[in-house]
Amino acid sequence: MTRIDGRAMDELRPIQITTDFVKFAEGSCLIACGDTKVLCCASVEERVPPHVAEGSGWVTAEYSMLPRANRERSKRDVSKLKLSPRSAEIQRLVGRSLRAAVDLKRLGERTITIDCDVLQGDGGTRTASVTGGFIALALACRKLVEEGVLGATPIRRFVCGVSAGIVDETPMLDLRYSEDSRAQVDLNCVMNELGELIELQGTGEGRAFTLAEQQELVRLCAKGNRELIQLQKRVLGGL
Amino acid sequence: MTRIDGRAMDELRPIQITTDFVKFAEGSCLIACGDTKVLCCASVEERVPPHVAEGSGWVTAEYSMLPRANRERSKRDVSKLKLSPRSAEIQRLVGRSLRAAVDLKRLGERTITIDCDVLQGDGGTRTASVTGGFIALALACRKLVEEGVLGATPIRRFVCGVSAGIVDETPMLDLRYSEDSRAQVDLNCVMNELGELIELQGTGEGRAFTLAEQQELVRLCAKGNRELIQLQKRVLGGL
Amino acid sequence: MTRIDGRAMDELRPIQITTDFVKFAEGSCLIACGDTKVLCCASVEERVPPHVAEGSGWVTAEYSMLPRANRERSKRDVSKLKLSPRSAEIQRLVGRSLRAAVDLKRLGERTITIDCDVLQGDGGTRTASVTGGFIALALACRKLVEEGVLGATPIRRFVCGVSAGIVDETPMLDLRYSEDSRAQVDLNCVMNELGELIELQGTGEGRAFTLAEQQELVRLCAKGNRELIQLQKRVLGGL
Amino acid sequence: MTRIDGRAMDELRPIQITTDFVKFAEGSCLIACGDTKVLCCASVEERVPPHVAEGSGWVTAEYSMLPRANRERSKRDVSKLKLSPRSAEIQRLVGRSLRAAVDLKRLGERTITIDCDVLQGDGGTRTASVTGGFIALALACRKLVEEGVLGATPIRRFVCGVSAGIVDETPMLDLRYSEDSRAQVDLNCVMNELGELIELQGTGEGRAFTLAEQQELVRLCAKGNRELIQLQKRVLGGL
Amino acid sequence: MTRIDGRAMDELRPIQITTDFVKFAEGSCLIACGDTKVLCCASVEERVPPHVAEGSGWVTAEYSMLPRANRERSKRDVSKLKLSPRSAEIQRLVGRSLRAAVDLKRLGERTITIDCDVLQGDGGTRTASVTGGFIALALACRKLVEEGVLGATPIRRFVCGVSAGIVDETPMLDLRYSEDSRAQVDLNCVMNELGELIELQGTGEGRAFTLAEQQELVRLCAKGNRELIQLQKRVLGGL
Amino acid sequence: MTRIDGRAMDELRPIQITTDFVKFAEGSCLIACGDTKVLCCASVEERVPPHVAEGSGWVTAEYSMLPRANRERSKRDVSKLKLSPRSAEIQRLVGRSLRAAVDLKRLGERTITIDCDVLQGDGGTRTASVTGGFIALALACRKLVEEGVLGATPIRRFVCGVSAGIVDETPMLDLRYSEDSRAQVDLNCVMNELGELIELQGTGEGRAFTLAEQQELVRLCAKGNRELIQLQKRVLGGL
Repeated sequence: MTRIDGRAMDELRPIQITTDFVKFAEGSCLIACGDTKVLCCASVEERVPPHVAEGSGWVTAEYSMLPRANRERSKRDVSKLKLSPRSAEIQRLVGRSLRAAVDLKRLGERTITIDCDVLQGDGGTRTASVTGGFIALALACRKLVEEGVLGATPIRRFVCGVSAGIVDETPMLDLRYSEDSRAQVDLNCVMNELGELIELQGTGEGRAFTLAEQQELVRLCAKGNRELIQLQKRVLGGL
Repeated sequence: MTRIDGRAMDELRPIQITTDFVKFAEGSCLIACGDTKVLCCASVEERVPPHVAEGSGWVTAEYSMLPRANRERSKRDVSKLKLSPRSAEIQRLVGRSLRAAVDLKRLGERTITIDCDVLQGDGGTRTASVTGGFIALALACRKLVEEGVLGATPIRRFVCGVSAGIVDETPMLDLRYSEDSRAQVDLNCVMNELGELIELQGTGEGRAFTLAEQQELVRLCAKGNRELIQLQKRVLGGL
Repeated sequence: MTRIDGRAMDELRPIQITTDFVKFAEGSCLIACGDTKVLCCASVEERVPPHVAEGSGWVTAEYSMLPRANRERSKRDVSKLKLSPRSAEIQRLVGRSLRAAVDLKRLGERTITIDCDVLQGDGGTRTASVTGGFIALALACRKLVEEGVLGATPIRRFVCGVSAGIVDETPMLDLRYSEDSRAQVDLNCVMNELGELIELQGTGEGRAFTLAEQQELVRLCAKGNRELIQLQKRVLGGL
Repeated sequence: MTRIDGRAMDELRPIQITTDFVKFAEGSCLIACGDTKVLCCASVEERVPPHVAEGSGWVTAEYSMLPRANRERSKRDVSKLKLSPRSAEIQRLVGRSLRAAVDLKRLGERTITIDCDVLQGDGGTRTASVTGGFIALALACRKLVEEGVLGATPIRRFVCGVSAGIVDETPMLDLRYSEDSRAQVDLNCVMNELGELIELQGTGEGRAFTLAEQQELVRLCAKGNRELIQLQKRVLGGL
Repeated sequence: MTRIDGRAMDELRPIQITTDFVKFAEGSCLIACGDTKVLCCASVEERVPPHVAEGSGWVTAEYSMLPRANRERSKRDVSKLKLSPRSAEIQRLVGRSLRAAVDLKRLGERTITIDCDVLQGDGGTRTASVTGGFIALALACRKLVEEGVLGATPIRRFVCGVSAGIVDETPMLDLRYSEDSRAQVDLNCVMNELGELIELQGTGEGRAFTLAEQQELVRLCAKGNRELIQLQKRVLGGL
Repeated sequence: MTRIDGRAMDELRPIQITTDFVKFAEGSCLIACGDTKVLCCASVEERVPPHVAEGSGWVTAEYSMLPRANRERSKRDVSKLKLSPRSAEIQRLVGRSLRAAVDLKRLGERTITIDCDVLQGDGGTRTASVTGGFIALALACRKLVEEGVLGATPIRRFVCGVSAGIVDETPMLDLRYSEDSRAQVDLNCVMNELGELIELQGTGEGRAFTLAEQQELVRLCAKGNRELIQLQKRVLGGL
């Protein structure tokens, strides 16, 4: 069995990260994972939401798909007066993931919001949002250091997201849409540069899966994670 | 180290399931897991949403907390004109989990909606919603058989939800709120009666976690799963 | 003519009040009037809305039906992004009724919110909300006294709600749904322990009604009111 | 004791009804009760909402205050994305009241919507909406007859609304705002030309009230009702 | 070619302005331009929105049509939970236009809101809103002077709105609905008493238009503007 | 006086149009006018909204700014549950402009929606949306022809948008944000390839403007229009 684009089972799609794709955000990048393209922008505000402990900062994320990011046009959330539940789920995941990358005490009483807007969706938009969102976040933190607002970056660890799944009974890394849409099992990992897990979400779409299968999928993700962290380090050249 | 309520690390809280707590729903139960109380009601409608394939049925879920289910009163969703993002995430999980329990073809062109309303929340409301929601679903399916609408139940497998976490560096099963609120790692499993996974969600709240820790937490969940499936079978006395 | 459940024309349905049905609210009860079941929770907050005069407190209510409280499942308010107009009308009635029970000056600058959530509806949910809401309110006030926040209860009078109607040209007390749905006239009273009126709402559903009929319905309600106040006093054992 | 504007206790404010104040509605009037001014428009549509029985028509009402109808400007409902709960309550009352005036079978499968928009509010806007709304409704029905759509008017009885209250321990008819805002008891009646009740709403704003007081207020309303029905008959010159 | 109502091509419809149509607003008028009737109310509040520079005031407008202002009943904005996009566009235009009439520094830190509610619409509602809104604004400013809040009116110039269009290839002033609905080109001007432009909006509804045609339409508007300013001066008798 | 970026008064910013920036839309381009970047996507649907005459097609537009398109992050519309009024105004303009470019009869009973999403805003986003939106529209129409759905393009004329303004008393073409934010007068034109006007919107932001100034601004726009139409023709190489 071979994959539609000739990739090995444990091979990521080609990834391209263009930093500073827009110029007003404190940090930004356009990340392309194959045909999936997400614009990630980090915005710094000098206040925190009310639930945050005194002396601490906050990192949060918003996620949205442009109406024609997909094969079919979808209505804008504002037309339906509802945040899409899928977007709600994803932006909570991205927010938790990037919060785990930061020492919120060292960030101080400010909020960094990561906007992840999917310009084109071909599978893996949530993990691309984590990987690209981390770049935007790191750039914004670097700017805070360069401007003398912070003495050192509050980022603790590199963090990225990667997915794997079982298609036609075969575990494989980084599903594109044509694979994802007929996957039996779908699993997303957010991991740090030590290969530890921060978020793990697995779903039996077509069938239940065994604990052994689950471990195999996490192993595939761990392999992808090592490569993505390397790429992030190359793009950023350090924190 | 002992747990606040004297439980062993791999011990579930006492569970009580009262079927037919309300009488108009096609199936219902009140499930209490310790102090967590969720009212689960299954409603059958003879139509399906537009995205469902012809000849197939649909199972979906809604989740909500009553305003005073928690230590602090929270505003109703309708006052904020938004479904709480947390509720959106949870009801998607419950819906996927219970859909996996059913052969949608055999259900035929009808929808079963499982309403999970948390009367009191003390940790583990999403997994209690899956476990209790399954009971309500099974009762509704039984009623369809009894009424001659269906020849046999469309349920394929028993399904339940269970959580585990790491508190003070110790893995433990079925966290109550006072444990959950200081957990370092939190992991939820939805599993079927074969011990296979349907949904898996793990979050490093306080720190990242290793693959070994992840496996240990899934093992704890698998132990809880076996007991919950037994309980479900006792309550229902078969499908 | 006899009633479907064999009751006399001036007889209330059996009533059961379970106090402290949930444990986080400052006061709560589950009230069952026949098959109508309402969960009433009182929450105390140490602030008042802006329209309240300085030095004064506030009592307000919210009312909602769970989606499967009735014979047919209804959509949640948040799905429609509107508070149901019927709920809006009822919660204004419950709020005014319970406010009348309290000396707002003696309550001091705090708000008590009474959440009335109908778990099962079989007619008379608004009057059950007043009767049960009063219990929750009184328990919350008692807790404020026990905690030393208040020197004495700010409750001035026992207050309860009761309904009557004309069915098949016959006036009768406390309609259940099968009676209510074909009532010609429907009338609700909120009264205090002195038998005085606080709220009065009468509607000619099927036909107009005379002043004499109106008085007869109020007389029936006054009879029910006396019994309900007795029950409230038994349940609470004083204020 | 005399009233601020010199009226007797059982005296209505001067009323002025201008029919056809706007020209596109099938029926309309501007009703002024003292300084309260409500524009009432009846619109006919050749379809009914889904809940209406086959072969039957429907009458419904909407009520709104213009932002500067009162002493203080209020925000528009659409700015708050909520129908004001008070408006919800009132428009349900007006709808029920005017529905009672019509034989819905004879109306046939069409809907008449009565829009009551308060241009200036000085107390008694809900009862003015009923009284003026009836005029708009009757004019629309007359037009249906004139156009040959209906053979005879579906209106069964004249219907109007009137209020009374207790101010400084004195019962009085038709409160203006300066009286209403300090009323101890406030009571609204919708009555037909036979002096029968269709809707009755009484509220103890400042104190509870006795059954005797309630009857006295209804008697005052009945007196006002007779005058208002006369006026409606003069304005319309028959149905 | 003659116009349906016999007007000359450069002739305005008859205009009637009733000041103080409602009595609570600081300034108000009912403006009728032919069959178009708009109620304009100015409300003064002693605060400004956050985006306004310190020491400066603010003037803003809201625009809405009553549901039965037109030939067909339209749903209220609040039923759709959206401000009509057309209303959004118009109220921005009216707000900018009236802001241009005022020296915001001299107004001081207060907001004047002009509510323009269309009671009957027969074409030209947006320009009638500007013309009538200016009257309400001027009356409110006069009241601020009379009450000693301001030493002199902050109004700098008279401002009014007027429209023209091309119908059947003929340019004409002040289109009524029956003309407007088949206009090829539609152009609105807001101008001051010096004949200068404040707002200009032209649309080729049925076809594109030349620069020469555009100038001809502006010339027609300038003629109408001179007459409207005269009328405003007559009605107000000075600022 | 020279412009901040050294441009002549009648000189456009450099424009770059990347067609097929995203691959699922029937037509798309990324248009950059200086630092303003708008992603324009055309989506074809085989149905029309109810208000469209039988046999005719429809063209409409939606406009939105990404949250960090500007110097300050703005909240998403869906968070506020309102379409921004500015966006509402702009998308109506873009829709009317592009509708004017198309023979709706020849388009047939289908809708083309042009989504204009501003990735970066530096002035002139609405005119860039028209100019880029036309390219996306033309590409989508070409695809309909290539697929044999239409025999010939339904586009009648090239259409583009361009702005001019008066800054420091000097009329100039195509304002960037730093000019626009202190402009005294701002004017937008949508014109076709014959130099005729389709839409014209002028606003006296800082002061009123004379008819002569208005003409001068339109003349500047006409000059820009000629260059933009040339560019569109080069990019598309014919319709």
